[in-house]
Amino acid sequence: MSQPEFKNFPKLRKELYIVVFGTETRSGKIFDIVLLWAIVLSVLSVMLESVEEFNARFGNLFAVLEWSFTILFTIEYSLRIVISKRPEKYAFSFLGIIDLLALLPTYLTLITAGGSYLIVIRAIRLLRIFRILKLSRYLREASVLGDALKASRHKIFVFLGAVSTLVMIMGTLMYIIESGESGFTSIPRSIYWAIVTVTTVGYGDIAPQTALGQGFASILMLMGYAIIAVPTGIVTSEIATAERDKQLEESNEKNCDLCGNKVHDYDAEYCKKCGNQI
Amino acid sequence: MSQPEFKNFPKLRKELYIVVFGTETRSGKIFDIVLLWAIVLSVLSVMLESVEEFNARFGNLFAVLEWSFTILFTIEYSLRIVISKRPEKYAFSFLGIIDLLALLPTYLTLITAGGSYLIVIRAIRLLRIFRILKLSRYLREASVLGDALKASRHKIFVFLGAVSTLVMIMGTLMYIIESGESGFTSIPRSIYWAIVTVTTVGYGDIAPQTALGQGFASILMLMGYAIIAVPTGIVTSEIATAERDKQLEESNEKNCDLCGNKVHDYDAEYCKKCGNQI
Amino acid sequence: MSQPEFKNFPKLRKELYIVVFGTETRSGKIFDIVLLWAIVLSVLSVMLESVEEFNARFGNLFAVLEWSFTILFTIEYSLRIVISKRPEKYAFSFLGIIDLLALLPTYLTLITAGGSYLIVIRAIRLLRIFRILKLSRYLREASVLGDALKASRHKIFVFLGAVSTLVMIMGTLMYIIESGESGFTSIPRSIYWAIVTVTTVGYGDIAPQTALGQGFASILMLMGYAIIAVPTGIVTSEIATAERDKQLEESNEKNCDLCGNKVHDYDAEYCKKCGNQI
Amino acid sequence: MSQPEFKNFPKLRKELYIVVFGTETRSGKIFDIVLLWAIVLSVLSVMLESVEEFNARFGNLFAVLEWSFTILFTIEYSLRIVISKRPEKYAFSFLGIIDLLALLPTYLTLITAGGSYLIVIRAIRLLRIFRILKLSRYLREASVLGDALKASRHKIFVFLGAVSTLVMIMGTLMYIIESGESGFTSIPRSIYWAIVTVTTVGYGDIAPQTALGQGFASILMLMGYAIIAVPTGIVTSEIATAERDKQLEESNEKNCDLCGNKVHDYDAEYCKKCGNQI
Repeated sequence: MSQPEFKNFPKLRKELYIVVFGTETRSGKIFDIVLLWAIVLSVLSVMLESVEEFNARFGNLFAVLEWSFTILFTIEYSLRIVISKRPEKYAFSFLGIIDLLALLPTYLTLITAGGSYLIVIRAIRLLRIFRILKLSRYLREASVLGDALKASRHKIFVFLGAVSTLVMIMGTLMYIIESGESGFTSIPRSIYWAIVTVTTVGYGDIAPQTALGQGFASILMLMGYAIIAVPTGIVTSEIATAERDKQLEESNEKNCDLCGNKVHDYDAEYCKKCGNQI
Repeated sequence: MSQPEFKNFPKLRKELYIVVFGTETRSGKIFDIVLLWAIVLSVLSVMLESVEEFNARFGNLFAVLEWSFTILFTIEYSLRIVISKRPEKYAFSFLGIIDLLALLPTYLTLITAGGSYLIVIRAIRLLRIFRILKLSRYLREASVLGDALKASRHKIFVFLGAVSTLVMIMGTLMYIIESGESGFTSIPRSIYWAIVTVTTVGYGDIAPQTALGQGFASILMLMGYAIIAVPTGIVTSEIATAERDKQLEESNEKNCDLCGNKVHDYDAEYCKKCGNQI
Repeated sequence: MSQPEFKNFPKLRKELYIVVFGTETRSGKIFDIVLLWAIVLSVLSVMLESVEEFNARFGNLFAVLEWSFTILFTIEYSLRIVISKRPEKYAFSFLGIIDLLALLPTYLTLITAGGSYLIVIRAIRLLRIFRILKLSRYLREASVLGDALKASRHKIFVFLGAVSTLVMIMGTLMYIIESGESGFTSIPRSIYWAIVTVTTVGYGDIAPQTALGQGFASILMLMGYAIIAVPTGIVTSEIATAERDKQLEESNEKNCDLCGNKVHDYDAEYCKKCGNQI
Repeated sequence: MSQPEFKNFPKLRKELYIVVFGTETRSGKIFDIVLLWAIVLSVLSVMLESVEEFNARFGNLFAVLEWSFTILFTIEYSLRIVISKRPEKYAFSFLGIIDLLALLPTYLTLITAGGSYLIVIRAIRLLRIFRILKLSRYLREASVLGDALKASRHKIFVFLGAVSTLVMIMGTLMYIIESGESGFTSIPRSIYWAIVTVTTVGYGDIAPQTALGQGFASILMLMGYAIIAVPTGIVTSEIATAERDKQLEESNEKNCDLCGNKVHDYDAEYCKKCGNQI
C-alpha cells in the first residue's frame, strides 16, 4: 500500500464507520437494508434446506448459498471489528456476540457434521429493523414494554417459583393416581403433563383416563384459571405504570431552578426537595 | 324515455339515494333489513352447499340460489354506483370494494371451476348491522375498541417481531433436538409447532417425545405465560385510556367563569368548587 | 278442617313463608340447608346414573331416588306457590322458572323415554348458597362482577360480531386450501376449527397438514393473541370501574340538603345541581 | 454428660437456634444453603427413580439416597423441635407441618409398599429460598401478590360457583347431544370435557363429532372467551390496588404542618403545595 492510502486510512475508516454502524446517511441506510435482505434470504435458505423435498432437489444450491452468505457476513463482521474505535466494546456487546455466533455454525460443519441449522439465530439480527428504519415510535414502545417487563421480573420470578412447586406436586400426584397408565410413565413426564395443562396448551398426547385422575386434572385446570390471570395482571399493571411514567417524562421535564430536582408532579407549585417556588 | 322522466331523474335519484344509502326513513330501514336477510341466506346457502350430503340432495337448489342472490346483489351494486353523487368515492371505499369482491366469485365460476366459496366474504357486509339498526351505543363502543387497537398497534408490532424471532429459534432448536422424529420433520414445521405452543393452542398433532425436547417445550410454555400477558396488558391499558378519553370528549369541557375550575361532569349545572352557576 | 284452622291459615301461611322464603330464622336456615343437600344429592344421583357400571349395578336405586327427589321438590314447589302473597310473581321469576323446569324432566319420562338427565339444571338452584349463608360479602362481589359484565356487554357484542366474521372467512379459506383433507370436510366444520383455534382451545381433531394451511393457521393463531386480549381488556377495565363505583357508593352517600342530589365527588364543596353549599 | 455441658445447654441452644432458624449469620446462611441443596438432590433423586430405565440401573443407589436424606431431614426436624422456645408453635406452623409430611412417606414404605413418591412435597420447602437469600425485594412482591389474591378470593369463589354450574349444564347437554359417542360416555366425563374446553386447555381426547355437538361446543368456547377474561380482570384490578396500597404504606403518610396537604412522596422534604419544610 502507498503512503497516501495509509494517511487516508483514518478518514476512510470514519467514512466506513458511518456507513456500517450509522443509519443517518443514504449509503448507511442502503448498507443496512441490503444487510437485512441478506439475513432474510440466508435464514429462509436454511429453513427450506431442512424440508426433505427441497433438500433432495436443490441440496447443492443451498450449500452454495450457505457458504456465500457466511463469507459475506464474515467480511461484514471483520469490517465492524476493524473500523470500530473500541473493537472490544462491539465484540462483547449483545449484537456483536449474536453476529459472531451466527457465523460459527457453518464453519463448524467443516469439523463435525450437523448443527448448521443454528444459523437461524441470525434471525435475532432482524430485530435491528426497528433501529434501522428510524422508527422512533417503535423504539419508544419497545422501551415502555421493556420497562414494564423489567419492573415485573421480581413478581414473575416469585410467580414462577410458586408454579414450579405446584406442577411438581400435581405431576407426582397424577403419576401415583394414573400409576404409569396413559402416558404418565414417570414423574418428569407427569410434571411435563402438568405444565402442558396449567399453561392451557393441552396437547392431549398425555391425558388422564381414570375418573380420579380426571377429577384432579379438572382441579388443576380451574386453578390454572386463577394462575394464568396472575402474570397478565402483573404485566398489565406494570405496562400502565410504565406508560404513565413515560408520558410524564416526556411531557413535564422542567427542573427546579434552585436545586435542579426534576419536577414530575404537574400540579406542584414548590420544589419538593428545596422548597423553591417554581 | 320521455322528457318528464329525465326531468325527474335527479329527484328520483335523490329519493333512491335516501332509501339505499340512508337508514333514517322507514323505506330506507326496510331496504337495509331485506338486504341483511338476503346476505344471511346467501352466506348460509354457500356454507351448506359445502356439506357433502346437502350438496348431493339439493345441489341444483344451491346453484339456483347462488345465481339469484348474485344477480340481486349485482343490481344493488349497480344501483349504488348509479345513484351516488361521486360513484368513484363509493367504489373505492372499504365497503364498496367488499361489495364488488362479494360478487366476483360466482361470475368466476363461468370461466374456471371452484372458488365460488369465496362468496363468504359477503359476511363482512353483515357488520353493517350495527350501523343500520342505529345502535349508536354500539358505534360508540366499536369506536372505543378501534381507538384502543389503533393506539396499541406499535406495541403489538414490536411484540410480534420479538415473538417471531423467538418461535424461529425455538422451532429450529426443537428440530435439532427431536431430529425429525414425532412430527418435527422440517424447520418450518417445527416453527409451526412453536407457534401452536406459544399461543397455547396446542393441537398435539406435533408433540415432543424425547425428555430433552419436553424440557425445552416446558420452558417455551412457561415463557408463553409471560408472553401472552403482554398483548393483554397492552390492550387493557389502551382500552382504559380510550374509554377515559371518550368520556372526556363527551363531557362538555367548559370551565367555571368564576374560579376557573374545569367542569368534567356533563350534567353539572353549578361549579362544585365555588357554587357559581354555569 | 275445623274453623280455627281456617282462621289461623293466614298466620300459618305467614310462618311457613318465613321458613320457606326467609333465611333469617333458625328454622328458615335449616329448611334451606336441607333443601341444598337434597339438590346436591339429586344432581349427584343423576350424574352417577349416567355412568354405565353404576347404572348396571344400582339402576333401580337411581330410579327410586329420582322419583323421591322429584316428589319432594314438587311438594316444595307447590308450597312456594301456595304461601306466596303474589304466586304469579314467584312463578315467573328467574328462580321460579328454574324450579319448575327442574321438575319436568322426570315427569316427561312417563310420556317419552330419555331426557331425564336434564334434571341437572337443578344445579342452578345451588347458586342460592350465596344468598342462604348470608354471605353479604359474596353478594357485594357478585354485584360488582355483574355490573362489570353488564357494562361490558355492548363492547362484547361488537367484539363477537367481528370475531364471527373473522372465523367465517378464515374457516372458508382453510376449507379451500386444505380442500376437504385432514378433517376440513365442509365449511361449517372448518369454521368450527377456526373457533377452536382462535379461542386457543386447540383440540387437534382437525388440524392443517399442508404447508400453506399451516401458514394460514399460524397467522390465525397470532391474530388470536391480539383477539383474546380484547375481551380481557374490556372486562378488566370495567371491573376496575365497577369496583371504584361500588366503593364510592358505599363511602360517600351524603345527599344535598337542598335538592337531594346524591353527591359522589369526595372533594365537592357545593352541590353541582343547585349550587347549595354542603 | 458433664455439668458444664448442661450449664451451657441454653447457650448452645441459642447458638443453634441462630444457625438453624436464623439467616443473618454466616453459619446460618451456610446451614440454609446446604439444606436447600439437600432438598433439591432429594427431590431430583425421587423424580429420576420413577423413570424406568434409571430405576433398573441405579435402583439401589436411589434407595440408599432416599434413606440417607430422610435420616438427615429427620435429624434436622428433631433439632428444630428441640431448640425452639415454643416447639408446638413450630410444629403446627405451615412450614413445620410440611417438614413433617416430607419425612413420613419414606417411613411408610416400611409398613406398606408405594407412596414414597410423595416425598416430592419437600419441593414446597424450596420456596424458603426467597427468605434465605434475604431477597427482601422478592418478599415485598410476594406480599403484593398475596394481598391481591386474598382480596380477589371472594370474587374468585363467586366466579368458580358460576363456572361450575355452567360446566355441569353444558356437560349434561353435550352428553345428551352426542349420546355416548366419541368419548362422551357419562355425565361426569362430559363435565370433564366441558372443563377442558372452557379453560381452553383442549386435550382433544374427547371432542364432539356431530354437527349439533360442534355447534354447542363453539358456543361454549366463545363463552369461555368472556369467562377467562373475568379472573384476569379480577386479579389485574386487585394487583393494581395492592401495589398502590403497598406504595402508600411505604411512603410516610405525614401531612404538611402548614397547609395540611397530604404528603405522598416518600422522598419529599418540602410540601409541594405551600413550600413549607417538613
